[in-house]
Amino acid sequence: MKIGILGGGQLGRMLIQSALKYDDEFYTLDPASDAPCNSISNFTQGNFNDYETVLNFGKDKDVVTIEIEHVNADALAELENQGVKVVPNSKIIKTIQQKILQKEFYKAHDIPSPEFQVVWNSDEKIVMPLPFVQKMNTGGYDGKGVQVVKTEADYQNLWKEASVIENLVDIEKELSVIVARNEDGETKKFPVTEMVADPKLNLLDFNICPVFLNEETQKQIDIITEKFLNAINSPGLFAIELFLDKEGKVWVNETAPRLHNSGHQSQEGNANSQFEQMYRVVKNLPLADTDVLGYSGMLNLVGAEGFAGKVIYEGMEEVLKLPKTYVHLYGKTETKPGRKMGHINVLADSREELMEKLIKVKEMVRVIAQ
Amino acid sequence: MKIGILGGGQLGRMLIQSALKYDDEFYTLDPASDAPCNSISNFTQGNFNDYETVLNFGKDKDVVTIEIEHVNADALAELENQGVKVVPNSKIIKTIQQKILQKEFYKAHDIPSPEFQVVWNSDEKIVMPLPFVQKMNTGGYDGKGVQVVKTEADYQNLWKEASVIENLVDIEKELSVIVARNEDGETKKFPVTEMVADPKLNLLDFNICPVFLNEETQKQIDIITEKFLNAINSPGLFAIELFLDKEGKVWVNETAPRLHNSGHQSQEGNANSQFEQMYRVVKNLPLADTDVLGYSGMLNLVGAEGFAGKVIYEGMEEVLKLPKTYVHLYGKTETKPGRKMGHINVLADSREELMEKLIKVKEMVRVIAQ
Repeated sequence: MKIGILGGGQLGRMLIQSALKYDDEFYTLDPASDAPCNSISNFTQGNFNDYETVLNFGKDKDVVTIEIEHVNADALAELENQGVKVVPNSKIIKTIQQKILQKEFYKAHDIPSPEFQVVWNSDEKIVMPLPFVQKMNTGGYDGKGVQVVKTEADYQNLWKEASVIENLVDIEKELSVIVARNEDGETKKFPVTEMVADPKLNLLDFNICPVFLNEETQKQIDIITEKFLNAINSPGLFAIELFLDKEGKVWVNETAPRLHNSGHQSQEGNANSQFEQMYRVVKNLPLADTDVLGYSGMLNLVGAEGFAGKVIYEGMEEVLKLPKTYVHLYGKTETKPGRKMGHINVLADSREELMEKLIKVKEMVRVIAQ
Repeated sequence: MKIGILGGGQLGRMLIQSALKYDDEFYTLDPASDAPCNSISNFTQGNFNDYETVLNFGKDKDVVTIEIEHVNADALAELENQGVKVVPNSKIIKTIQQKILQKEFYKAHDIPSPEFQVVWNSDEKIVMPLPFVQKMNTGGYDGKGVQVVKTEADYQNLWKEASVIENLVDIEKELSVIVARNEDGETKKFPVTEMVADPKLNLLDFNICPVFLNEETQKQIDIITEKFLNAINSPGLFAIELFLDKEGKVWVNETAPRLHNSGHQSQEGNANSQFEQMYRVVKNLPLADTDVLGYSGMLNLVGAEGFAGKVIYEGMEEVLKLPKTYVHLYGKTETKPGRKMGHINVLADSREELMEKLIKVKEMVRVIAQ
C-alpha cells in the first residue's frame, strides 16, 4: 500500500522504522531536504502547508496521514473528496489545529478542559481572572504559542492575535494517554504516562509508565478517553495531555492528533509501541495490545545551550554499556540549543530503580557540537 | 558513518531497520533490483561475487560487512589492504565459505565437529562408514549443497565436486548459539535456542528460546563458544549451529559468519536483538545485553507449495489480533514455493504456552499468491 505522510521528522521516521516489518511503500513530504525521513522513504521536498503541494503529494496515495498537525487541512478535505483515505480525517485535524475550535470541541462533548474565553482581537475585554494562560489559536507547537499571564502588568505582553484565554490549573501531575481508533471503530488505549521533573536537576522532564493513580482519578481519565473516542468520528492515534489538579480533578490540557513524544517509551516498554499502533490505524488493521512489560521511562536528548553545528553525543558510549537502556537518535546531523535530537528509553523493575537510572543516564550524556 | 553491506536481503533489511535508531548511512549491494534493502538504503545493483564490483562498492565506505557469506572474499581482503574496515574480516569469511577450510578450522582449534574426510574429486576412495553426509565445499546455503548418503546404492548420487564427507550424527536436539565479538575484543553470547519440529504437523521447525539444558551440555557449549571466539581473531557476529547427540555430546554442525534465522526471535524475546548486536559489532561499540525477557519462539513464513506470484498472507489479519505476536515481513512482493517471505515471533510465559501459540499461529496463516 502507498502510504503518504505529511511531515518527514522523527515521528515519521520512527513510524516507518516500525512499519518496515510489513510490506508498504512510504512517501514523505517535508520542507527540509535533510529531514529524518528523507533517506528511508520516497521523499518529496515541499511545504505541507501549501494547498497545491499537499494535493499533488496525496492524490496518488492509498492513504495519507500526518506526523505534524500544522498542515493544509483544506487540501486534505479535497483529497477525501477525491476518494483518498486521510487518517485522521481533515475535520478532526482542523478542529485540533485551532485552539478555539479545540476548546469548543471539548465543551460540546462535555470533556473537562479548563474554563476559557475566546479572544478574536486585542480590543476584547478579558474577563478571565488572573493568573491565566494565553494560547494562540494557531501555530502553537512544543510550548511555543503558550504564555502564562500572572499580573496586570503582564497584560501589555498579551499577543494580539486570535487566542484562547484559559484558567491556570494548579497542577499536581501532568499525565498523558495515547488512544487509537481504527476505521472499523475498534479502540485501544495505552496505559497512562506521567511527566516527572527530575527533583535534583530540575532541568528536564522524564516521561514514565506505568503511573499508579487512585480509582477516582483513573475513572475520570477513562471517562475522558471514552468521550473523546466517541466524539472524534475519525480513525487516528491521539495523545491526550492531561492535568491532575491539587483537588484531584482531571482536565484535558490539549490533544495532538498524531504520534507523540509522551509515547516514546512504548518502543521497549509496552507489548507494542505507539508506532506499531499508528501503522495499524493507518491500515485499518486490528489494533495491537498495549500492555506494559515493566517500568519504562524516556528522556529527551535535546541540543545543549551554547552548541550549534555537527552533533556529538558526549558520553554515549558509556550509556550503551547500561543494560535495558535504548538510545534512539533521529538522523539529524546538526544540533542547536533545544533541538530534539533523540531520546533514551530505560526499563526497570520498580519506579525507584527507574528514576535512579533516568537521572544517572541524564547526567552521563550531553548533546554538543564539534 | 558510511556502512556498506554485501547483500540486500531480509537480514540486511532488519539490520538497517534496527540501526535506524542511530545516525548512520547504509549502502547495500545486491544483484536483484527488488532486493528488500533497496528502498531503505543507498542501493547498488550488482554481483557481490564479482571482485571489481565488491572493490568499487567498498572503497569509499568506513566499514563493509556482509549479510550473506557467499561474497568475493579476495575483494574484501584487498579492501582491508586499502584501509577499509571489513567485519567480519576476509580471512574468517573465506574460512567459513569453504566447508573444507571450515572443518579444518574446527580441528585446528579443538572444536568438536563430526569426523570428516575431504574429497577433492570423484576418484578418491571414501573411507567414511555409512551413513554419512556430503557437504559441497562451496555454494551450500539454506540446506542446499548438503545430502545424506545412507546406502551403497546412494553412492551413485554423490556430487563429484570438492566436498566434505562427514559422519552422520544421531541427533537428539538441534541447537544454535549466536555469539558476538567487537574489535576491542569484548564478547557476548545470546542464550541457546532450539529448533523444534511441530509434533502435530511435522512440517515446519520452530526456533525457541530459552532452552533448558543440563549442566554438562551447557558446559560443552560454553567451551565451544569460548574456543570459537578465541580462534576467530576477527570482530563479527556468528551463528554456531550445534547438534546434541543421543549420547549427550555436543558437535558443531556449521557456523554462519553473519546474522541468522535462528536469532530472529531475539527481536522481541531478548533485551536486545541480534540486529542491534550486529550493529554494535560493526561500529565497535560496547556490546548489548542479551537477556531473555521470557519464552520466545519464531516460525518462518515460507511460500506455500503450488503458489507463485504476487504474495497474499492468508489469515494474517487474525494473527494480528493475537497478543504478544509479532509479524515481520521482508518486503518481497513475489512468493514462490519455499521462499522465505517473513517470520512471526511469539512471546509466552512457559514453554507449553509457547508451543501452543506457535502451533496455533502456524495453522492460521498461509503464504499464497494472487
